[in-house]
Amino acid sequence: MNLSAIHQTIEENRQSVLDHFFELLRMPTISANPDHKDDLHHAAQWLVQYCQNIGLQSRILHTSGAPVVFAEHCPYPNQPVLLIYGHYDVQPVDPLEQWHTPPFDPTTKGDMIYARGADDDKGQFFSFLKAMEIIYSKTGSLPGNYKIVIEGEEEIGSAHFEELLSSQRELFQADSILIMDAGQFARGVPALVYGLRGLAYFEITCTGPVFDVHSGQFGGGVPNPAFSLIKILSQLKNDQGQITIPGFYQDVQEPEPWERDQMAQLPFQEESIKKELGIRAFQQEMNYTPLESMTVRPTFDICGIWGGYTGSGSKTIIPARCSAKFSFRLVPNQTPSKTATLLLEHLKSIVPPDIDYHVEVLPGIEPIITDPHKPIFTAFNQAIKNHFGRSPVLIRGGGSVGVANLFKRYLVPDSICMNGWGSPDDGVHSPNEHFSINDFFRGIHSTVDFIFEFQASFNRG
Amino acid sequence: MNLSAIHQTIEENRQSVLDHFFELLRMPTISANPDHKDDLHHAAQWLVQYCQNIGLQSRILHTSGAPVVFAEHCPYPNQPVLLIYGHYDVQPVDPLEQWHTPPFDPTTKGDMIYARGADDDKGQFFSFLKAMEIIYSKTGSLPGNYKIVIEGEEEIGSAHFEELLSSQRELFQADSILIMDAGQFARGVPALVYGLRGLAYFEITCTGPVFDVHSGQFGGGVPNPAFSLIKILSQLKNDQGQITIPGFYQDVQEPEPWERDQMAQLPFQEESIKKELGIRAFQQEMNYTPLESMTVRPTFDICGIWGGYTGSGSKTIIPARCSAKFSFRLVPNQTPSKTATLLLEHLKSIVPPDIDYHVEVLPGIEPIITDPHKPIFTAFNQAIKNHFGRSPVLIRGGGSVGVANLFKRYLVPDSICMNGWGSPDDGVHSPNEHFSINDFFRGIHSTVDFIFEFQASFNRG
Repeated sequence: MNLSAIHQTIEENRQSVLDHFFELLRMPTISANPDHKDDLHHAAQWLVQYCQNIGLQSRILHTSGAPVVFAEHCPYPNQPVLLIYGHYDVQPVDPLEQWHTPPFDPTTKGDMIYARGADDDKGQFFSFLKAMEIIYSKTGSLPGNYKIVIEGEEEIGSAHFEELLSSQRELFQADSILIMDAGQFARGVPALVYGLRGLAYFEITCTGPVFDVHSGQFGGGVPNPAFSLIKILSQLKNDQGQITIPGFYQDVQEPEPWERDQMAQLPFQEESIKKELGIRAFQQEMNYTPLESMTVRPTFDICGIWGGYTGSGSKTIIPARCSAKFSFRLVPNQTPSKTATLLLEHLKSIVPPDIDYHVEVLPGIEPIITDPHKPIFTAFNQAIKNHFGRSPVLIRGGGSVGVANLFKRYLVPDSICMNGWGSPDDGVHSPNEHFSINDFFRGIHSTVDFIFEFQASFNRG
Repeated sequence: MNLSAIHQTIEENRQSVLDHFFELLRMPTISANPDHKDDLHHAAQWLVQYCQNIGLQSRILHTSGAPVVFAEHCPYPNQPVLLIYGHYDVQPVDPLEQWHTPPFDPTTKGDMIYARGADDDKGQFFSFLKAMEIIYSKTGSLPGNYKIVIEGEEEIGSAHFEELLSSQRELFQADSILIMDAGQFARGVPALVYGLRGLAYFEITCTGPVFDVHSGQFGGGVPNPAFSLIKILSQLKNDQGQITIPGFYQDVQEPEPWERDQMAQLPFQEESIKKELGIRAFQQEMNYTPLESMTVRPTFDICGIWGGYTGSGSKTIIPARCSAKFSFRLVPNQTPSKTATLLLEHLKSIVPPDIDYHVEVLPGIEPIITDPHKPIFTAFNQAIKNHFGRSPVLIRGGGSVGVANLFKRYLVPDSICMNGWGSPDDGVHSPNEHFSINDFFRGIHSTVDFIFEFQASFNRG
């Protein structure tokens, strides 16, 4: 295999690669707007054709929403299957007047391509397809088993994608999942995501008198449900940022020493984040850094609270009820269901018997983690080092990624890796979204090496 | 002075007394509705004429709102002046369809008169005027110095009444104030109110990030203003129902043993109140009964709280801000201003330095108390015993009465007493408001005795 010839071909064809990419960027695939239904269908058809041209068996999977592009190349029954996920739909472009160039007329300025979807997510999955294309064109084949899945409703919650995945597990079955919808940790610091936090979400309501009553007439005697509620919630986290529910930390997988070392070396811009968010200080968990607290440690947060009089001036009442929404971010190996059980048990023990409260358990999300020594990570590590001049950092995300959990639930893969070549300041979801041409090409080069390296790791193994 | 002749005259003229009262009740003096402006003026004029007829110098005091009836009889420069307050305006009548008889067509059923304003407040001040009338008609004079003030905007906050009082203190100056706008403690248990709680009211806002942020991305590191807020408020009252602000109880006047004895003997309907309000238990302050906690002890209550996401389902954010309105009911000798000072000092000491919060101090109300051994109480005690067959109970109200504080602030009287003949179940402010004919007449008889008894106490003194 002459890899350098492949890399040379990429470099020799930079303009045609960009022209091809721009063709995709010109399609206004806004999933949120029903007026763009035909554009979504057109893009899906275009992608099916493209996949067909580069050696993949390709087709549209119809849903009651936007079509899903499905392409596969699985000639090696004894080898693992890698599923690559991306989405061809994009965010709306409002406010349009804030764009300096038309969002669907990709424009180059210096190293940057300005267009809606340039980073999120067309640039990411397209770099993978482009790497495949060039390998296929130079070698006449593709090493390894691949399934390509490009959906058209990621920006509106992937609702129909779940229906498809749950009803056709066999079709999607894969050993490794590569979600090409992440990005670098900072410009010039490529990253691989090997874990995500989960979520347990609750709504609590405390009730007092059946109607708001006069706080002069009844204050001091009639229970105040707002006070009951805040007293309960205030007891769930101590001043050290630790959650006080007995057993809550029992299943928590402590970050490994290497993970903490890695995080300590990340270019985490503490001061600039504080400035951007307008906060004076982080409030991390005791014995953990802010970055650790925001990624590998569980949390408790109140997301909303309401009750009683909220207009202007003063109204002297004891409210009839008060509610709050609150959540716990979960880390491996916590689960939403066990968290709910522990919470409800704890509330039973701390809430006085004459306080009326009700807790609604809202849908949760499992945390995700893959051992980052799995081949998908080691292969990317080497490939990225070859082209970015440094190894990617291994990170865990603080939030959740809907499709990652769908894949985990329905396919139970051996590994899930999230990758991408965009940067945090690319303005995804904002006007003037952009993507570095240099990183786009470094991404294609890295993907070529990844494909061969990943394949080689199985032949070695 | 032949008192029995006066009482006999009242009994002989029951029907004409009622007819006269009904004339007043027929006037639809709804102050909240501008359509009734002429009705308010007509009622005021009618009352001025009535006062004129019974030996009082009477006139309208114009305001930019409803007129105030002012009548006086102060021929004795060396004797104290008693100011009697009432209001001729009434609450709206909605929902009209729930009235069994027209609200301004007074209807008698058994012992009850059904009409808007029958209890609140026409029946109360009219009983005083009627007692004066009959004394005047039988004796040709009125014993003592009186100022009668009947306003027309009590039900909409007495806004213009304050303007008048503050600009014409001399005119209203009085030694004792009798507010005829209270009622019996329970039917058959007449009451005199000698104290009211005050109020300190605050709004607190905690701020976090300048905009709502993703609780996955930032949870665990970025301070949650909703949690900061509830942590602060949860620390202001302990599990024993005691307020934890240092110095808060310093100025609190403990209820006297006789006051606690008196309260213990009141027919406080604990079970029926719990049932009506739908609560399982009272939550009184430790070492005090529910009734004591609701009348003679200070309180802390959250009146409203809001922040973050309050729609349906789950939204995973750290809110940018969270606010709450909260109040303390104050008892003698606390003041709103000292309470504010103590609160703000305490917050400085308990809130960590990197929490951003702001407290707005809203207008407060001073608590009120009069020694119930003052002549106005002892005179009423005897007078009521004469006609209700039992002494009135002496009580302190848990709420505030706007005009009581206005009188306290602008006139600095020696005593303030609140009285009335209505009962808690008369349906004031509700459809089918009613008032007992028997209590109305017992009220007139009691007032006659009060007038002579009160006057005699000064002659004795």
